[in-house]
Amino acid sequence: MPKSNSEKDFLEFLQEIDAYHELISLAHWDLRTKIPKKGVETRSEAIGVLSAKVHEMQTSDKMKHFIDELKHKTNDEVIQKAVEECELDYERNRKIPGAEYKEYVTLQGQAEAAWQEAREKENFQLFQPYLERLVEFNKKFANYWGYEDHIYDALLDQYEPGMTVKTLDKVFPALRDSLTELRQKVNSSKAHVDSSLVLGYFSKEQQRNFSIEVLKQMNYDFEAGRLDDTIHPFEITLNLQDVRITTRYDENDFRMAVFGIIHEGGHALYEQNINQKLARTPLATGTSMGIHESQSLFWENLIGRSNGFWQANYEKFKSFAPDFFNDLDTRQFYQAINEVKPTLIRIEADELTYALHIMVRYELEKALINGEIEVKDLPDLWNEKMVDYLGIEPANDAEGVLQDIHWSSGDFGYFPSYALGYMYAAQFYNTLNQQLEVDSIVQSGDLSPITNWLKENIHQYGKMKKPLELLQDITNESLNPAHLVNYLTEKYSRIYNF
Amino acid sequence: MPKSNSEKDFLEFLQEIDAYHELISLAHWDLRTKIPKKGVETRSEAIGVLSAKVHEMQTSDKMKHFIDELKHKTNDEVIQKAVEECELDYERNRKIPGAEYKEYVTLQGQAEAAWQEAREKENFQLFQPYLERLVEFNKKFANYWGYEDHIYDALLDQYEPGMTVKTLDKVFPALRDSLTELRQKVNSSKAHVDSSLVLGYFSKEQQRNFSIEVLKQMNYDFEAGRLDDTIHPFEITLNLQDVRITTRYDENDFRMAVFGIIHEGGHALYEQNINQKLARTPLATGTSMGIHESQSLFWENLIGRSNGFWQANYEKFKSFAPDFFNDLDTRQFYQAINEVKPTLIRIEADELTYALHIMVRYELEKALINGEIEVKDLPDLWNEKMVDYLGIEPANDAEGVLQDIHWSSGDFGYFPSYALGYMYAAQFYNTLNQQLEVDSIVQSGDLSPITNWLKENIHQYGKMKKPLELLQDITNESLNPAHLVNYLTEKYSRIYNF
Repeated sequence: MPKSNSEKDFLEFLQEIDAYHELISLAHWDLRTKIPKKGVETRSEAIGVLSAKVHEMQTSDKMKHFIDELKHKTNDEVIQKAVEECELDYERNRKIPGAEYKEYVTLQGQAEAAWQEAREKENFQLFQPYLERLVEFNKKFANYWGYEDHIYDALLDQYEPGMTVKTLDKVFPALRDSLTELRQKVNSSKAHVDSSLVLGYFSKEQQRNFSIEVLKQMNYDFEAGRLDDTIHPFEITLNLQDVRITTRYDENDFRMAVFGIIHEGGHALYEQNINQKLARTPLATGTSMGIHESQSLFWENLIGRSNGFWQANYEKFKSFAPDFFNDLDTRQFYQAINEVKPTLIRIEADELTYALHIMVRYELEKALINGEIEVKDLPDLWNEKMVDYLGIEPANDAEGVLQDIHWSSGDFGYFPSYALGYMYAAQFYNTLNQQLEVDSIVQSGDLSPITNWLKENIHQYGKMKKPLELLQDITNESLNPAHLVNYLTEKYSRIYNF
Repeated sequence: MPKSNSEKDFLEFLQEIDAYHELISLAHWDLRTKIPKKGVETRSEAIGVLSAKVHEMQTSDKMKHFIDELKHKTNDEVIQKAVEECELDYERNRKIPGAEYKEYVTLQGQAEAAWQEAREKENFQLFQPYLERLVEFNKKFANYWGYEDHIYDALLDQYEPGMTVKTLDKVFPALRDSLTELRQKVNSSKAHVDSSLVLGYFSKEQQRNFSIEVLKQMNYDFEAGRLDDTIHPFEITLNLQDVRITTRYDENDFRMAVFGIIHEGGHALYEQNINQKLARTPLATGTSMGIHESQSLFWENLIGRSNGFWQANYEKFKSFAPDFFNDLDTRQFYQAINEVKPTLIRIEADELTYALHIMVRYELEKALINGEIEVKDLPDLWNEKMVDYLGIEPANDAEGVLQDIHWSSGDFGYFPSYALGYMYAAQFYNTLNQQLEVDSIVQSGDLSPITNWLKENIHQYGKMKKPLELLQDITNESLNPAHLVNYLTEKYSRIYNF
């Protein structure tokens, strides 16, 4: 059916907004990879100017007009979904009074600077007044936006549409118990698993060369992306045919870059494989933070840290790696990269303890937003929970409550996505195993059947399906933490012989 | 004096426009240095969307309102000059009917593609119909814009404000006669000057490392810029503290990258040294194409290809260069890099013949715009003039009339800037020599007194002074080609012993 004039005008308006997004994203990429330091200040201001224009367009009467004119009145499925996305943005933004929004944006900038200083000085109190205001703003916003059961649901919904406290409060405790049980088995194991065996000088260039081989195996398209250096690695989509990844290198620990690149590559595959018919609409991205994270974790851990993957790739790896790896056979290497060792720092956590770090954060931020605890009590509560969940206690706030940037930019409701991503990944993996011979594919070194399955079932849809809808369609069940527990049990029982 | 509200509003509007310019420039830089090939199409569309917005702002009633309100009514010199620049843009753009402008932009795209094909196939006729239309448009535009003496003046003025056919027609023939005379002396010289002595494998990495040393000597600020690879080298200013240069390498001819980097470095110094009080206004760039080119040519040739420079730097150069340079002493090296040899291709021309290439183009485009010749006659006329001016004849149109991109994007009036840049550079150099001990500074290896002189006299002003005003202020005379002739005579008489 040919498009009506308002459908065409709407799509053109979306493309205009998308042009801004593309150049703003490029500016962010440049800020984090290439920019000379004196250029930062003016660049940041330029980003601010254009971002304000985007905000203006997204909340304009013109947008409202399109929403009213097209919602439920179009036969074009893409346009209908795009209208829904625009309406969500429109409503979310319009419900916050302009003056409050402006004040909040200023606060975010100040809070991040304060957080940085507080972390450097290991002094939570420098950050506390900013965090208190951020929490107050987020409570207000949540009330503007509305919710059914729990105020925190309104914040969760920004990152994981449809996810609720009710679901998380059912899933997380079950997961916690299983992980704790598994950790005890690992602790009492006599198996010799020692990650220090893989540490030692490994040149950045050779790490990069090997990682590129892996990205190609994953079918990351280098004609539609590139790999650069940065300080805090990320994936960024400029357009569906320009999806870039970044990494950093530790020349004494190859795991940072190699697994980091596989992780960002997983995010990038998701974006590269979105159906082109969604291009330049707000549907042309991952459907949620959690589903996005499921893709990166799937590749990093379920594939990249699997026995089969290293059976297929260890010889190649050794051709790039320094000589000391010749003293390790595949099995020793595989065990070493999968050592379980609780850490204070989330981003250094192993597969088994990672979700526990998330639960600490979830419980604290939920209670903060709900008014059950106060910001000033966070450091002590954090430390208590770390002992409780992981059995270790931070020596200072820098390795405790101040370690993550998220709260300093007011991102409450984001953390659960990481643990959800893990659970989604394992649940997808379970279905994938029923449909394909995953082990033999991974061992073959040609991963394209897996990439294609992900593309077919997940990637192509972009935001056309909501996260829980996607999960249901693929796995025929709702969120089920048992799949993650099963995957981890099977993996670690073999590594630690229990 | 504190700024009035309309002054503040005007500056804010300029900053808004500048934010667009910054992100559009970044997108161009990325297109030419980093972008993966599949991302190009959407990126180009995004640039188009934002460029149209800039055009809209520059020709808006809001802009007109500021011009009317502030022109000659402000006491702030920067604001007054900025208003004048905005008015120029406003008038230039408003005088072209919207529909014609749109048609012209489309034509530019098609013409460039046609030019590329024509050049590949060495067939001018494929390009001819597009060039005919481009010429017609430029005639029409020149008439819309108006002129006093000669229609071509209206086009010249876009790139070199204040420059006229009257001036060029006085200066170019005099220059041509002197250069021809010099060339004859070179031709009859028995001196052994052979550029092939410096050809041979020289790794890209080492060329780059040496060039970076030179850039530092020139006081290029790497904290406010960077150096990347590209196909067609350029300098680009994202903001005054982010001024980037690019280059390409020929591993068998170091001259391409080393002198290319010094050239782009000269452009970059100009921009890095503009007074910060002009930042984020239309005054924060070089005052004209010719003055800009004077800075790049000054560094590339008058410094970079000088005897003193190599006396200071040849030992360092050899520490990066391959062994065969050990067989050449400084004098032999210096002579080799200054060999005079007419070429068909402008961008490969030596210092002595370069301006002659420009005169060929100037005379042809002036006659085209003035209706004295027709597009279809260009190839023959081109070849005749090449024989006439340089004594060599192109074997085909690819190495003749089709070699430059400029006409394919309708840039008539641009070419003279290159020769003007040379004359300006020599004229500045003459004054500089009266004020500083240039030779001993260059030989000292610390070039900062020269950079500072340029900053003080030229760079800091950005567009606050018009090109001919700048020339007069610094050199106390109007454009005088004798300085270029004197410089070349002195240099080449020593190299070729006449």
